[in-house]
Amino acid sequence: MADSTVYQASTTAPVNIAVVKYWGKRDPKLNLPTNSSLSVTLSQSDLRTHTTAACSSTFGSDDSLLLNGSPQDVSGARTQACFRELRSLRAALEAADPSLPKLSTLTLKIVSENNFPTAAGLASSAAGFAALVRAIADLYQLPATKTELSKIARQGSGSACRSLFGGYVAWDMGSAADGSDSQAVEIAPASHWPNMRALILVASAEKKGVSSTAGMQTTVATSELFQRRAEIVVPKHMEQMIKAVKDKDFELFGKVTMMESNSFHATCLDTFPPIFYLNDTSRAAIRVVEAINEKAGKIIAAYTFDAGPNCVIYFEEEHMAEVAGAIKSVLGSVEGWEGKGEEVKTSDAAHLDERAVKALQEGLSRVIFTGVGEGPISVKESLLK
Amino acid sequence: MADSTVYQASTTAPVNIAVVKYWGKRDPKLNLPTNSSLSVTLSQSDLRTHTTAACSSTFGSDDSLLLNGSPQDVSGARTQACFRELRSLRAALEAADPSLPKLSTLTLKIVSENNFPTAAGLASSAAGFAALVRAIADLYQLPATKTELSKIARQGSGSACRSLFGGYVAWDMGSAADGSDSQAVEIAPASHWPNMRALILVASAEKKGVSSTAGMQTTVATSELFQRRAEIVVPKHMEQMIKAVKDKDFELFGKVTMMESNSFHATCLDTFPPIFYLNDTSRAAIRVVEAINEKAGKIIAAYTFDAGPNCVIYFEEEHMAEVAGAIKSVLGSVEGWEGKGEEVKTSDAAHLDERAVKALQEGLSRVIFTGVGEGPISVKESLLK
Repeated sequence: MADSTVYQASTTAPVNIAVVKYWGKRDPKLNLPTNSSLSVTLSQSDLRTHTTAACSSTFGSDDSLLLNGSPQDVSGARTQACFRELRSLRAALEAADPSLPKLSTLTLKIVSENNFPTAAGLASSAAGFAALVRAIADLYQLPATKTELSKIARQGSGSACRSLFGGYVAWDMGSAADGSDSQAVEIAPASHWPNMRALILVASAEKKGVSSTAGMQTTVATSELFQRRAEIVVPKHMEQMIKAVKDKDFELFGKVTMMESNSFHATCLDTFPPIFYLNDTSRAAIRVVEAINEKAGKIIAAYTFDAGPNCVIYFEEEHMAEVAGAIKSVLGSVEGWEGKGEEVKTSDAAHLDERAVKALQEGLSRVIFTGVGEGPISVKESLLK
Repeated sequence: MADSTVYQASTTAPVNIAVVKYWGKRDPKLNLPTNSSLSVTLSQSDLRTHTTAACSSTFGSDDSLLLNGSPQDVSGARTQACFRELRSLRAALEAADPSLPKLSTLTLKIVSENNFPTAAGLASSAAGFAALVRAIADLYQLPATKTELSKIARQGSGSACRSLFGGYVAWDMGSAADGSDSQAVEIAPASHWPNMRALILVASAEKKGVSSTAGMQTTVATSELFQRRAEIVVPKHMEQMIKAVKDKDFELFGKVTMMESNSFHATCLDTFPPIFYLNDTSRAAIRVVEAINEKAGKIIAAYTFDAGPNCVIYFEEEHMAEVAGAIKSVLGSVEGWEGKGEEVKTSDAAHLDERAVKALQEGLSRVIFTGVGEGPISVKESLLK
């Protein structure tokens, strides 16, 4: 008699925004990067993926994934790699303890939902694959550590490996050909530097130019400056950034964050044909951050841009008025401040360049105000219908 | 009895647009660059400075310079260096031949006029200093070669040294500490590759961000990618570009021109704080050139940008319809096509991206259609009033 139980586990996982950027694969199949990277995990109150992983003999023969209500293709090599590796770890447990149910042989049904608009162009694949791997690992009751799981999530989407941890997370590029040492490690938990805030300026939807997967490999192949970035610049920035996080030194953190973002986008521009992720709205956001720092007489805000025009501004809570308050004064009519009124009050913005402010008012669709947060969290709420 | 003769000489000098870019000084005082560069001299029919140099004992005690009717400050180190070096060469002639009038002791009056709008943001200082040096050298009847004069013009404005020649001109960076080997040389005259055309898309006036003089030194001091550009990338591009010019190989010329421009602007973006010369209009121009090349199935057009948003598109006359014709079809209402109707006829532009076309229509103030041209030309017409 077949076991008709539906086994399931649910988790939420966070988005992370890199301050030392991942760009370029030395092995595209295994998602092994050309350089290490480092990110801040953002609070799941504002940005998270919620995923239920279930398996049952009643599910038919095909594994499935439903994201925000839409069936997704799971036949791609990346999703398959995650399923295969997790099943293999479960199969080993089952072989060692024959009393365990043979979950590794059952069809998987994954249901996933984001609490943020996909159109916002935020790195949803990081949260998505982290949640998928974490949920299946919980379903399978795997004893694997977060770092071990990060190597599996990495194969789904490179930066997903960093979303298995909260706080400040490094992805060590590693050197092994099989990727066995290319994994995420915690540099510091969120509680070490809990007052880090992030204000995301979401640019109005623009047809996405070049996907990051395609873009980064064109950069590796054609940019003459890229090699120096990977070999010299990033290792230096990693060292500085780890020190900045450990010392909670915002000035160093901010300077390296901004220089890193610029260095990454410089190698995009040096790609042939050139890749532009920054537009005039992004440039205006940079000018506003520069004006805020200039008025403060030191670095209290730091911009960074992923593979798109959205600006993420990091700052510490004690500078809320000077950073978020000043920006809210000129962008208060943009969506996204709702419910944050207690925390963010408008403040003096006379020092912000008028043309930059106008460009932001015209070019942004919303803001997301959040902060550093925790890694994946097991939840009871199931998304299975 | 004092000689009251007014001695004078007049010349015109061209603008040049680099295809391998000068950016960064190893010696700011002598204008010695961190890398060699190469440019195409543009036709003086469309862009030129006309300069009269005069000297007389009747001129009072102060050297003067009138540009487009406005008195200019000549006390700056750069203009002073040009005056001093030219006077010194004249003084040597006078010492060797006492029958010569002592022009080196007389006050200089320089009058200069551009035939193009200064507001266009074109590299007018190159034409300006080339004309100034050439006119004074002619006034003084100096036997110096163009390459010798280029070392003097270089001290006025780096890229001015290249405007002493027509056609295809390299500025060898040299290695001597005194700048004695940092000079311009002709790679090929205009007649070697006479069918080279240039279409300049002049962006609407925007307050200039960072001057090239200040910008390039910030890049040298802060960009971590710049060193690789100066040491590895540019030497390779120089070699490829000299070959492309000698072989009249437009595909190589075009590819290196575009990659060079991108590499230069990448190091601007990698500067801290970052320098942006390209805007959304520039990016649209790049997309249009890419679409033209894609349709042709090979590189028939090449974009390049100096320290500003204006796009210069190089192409060969045989591709007039596919390049200038297609662009005129969508930008025909922009100023600057007048009088070029015989040469440039509108042609199919269906392959050009609609959004890019719209961005250009909104962001350009005029076009300038020109081609490769000659170096400074002695003229009779005096600008002395």
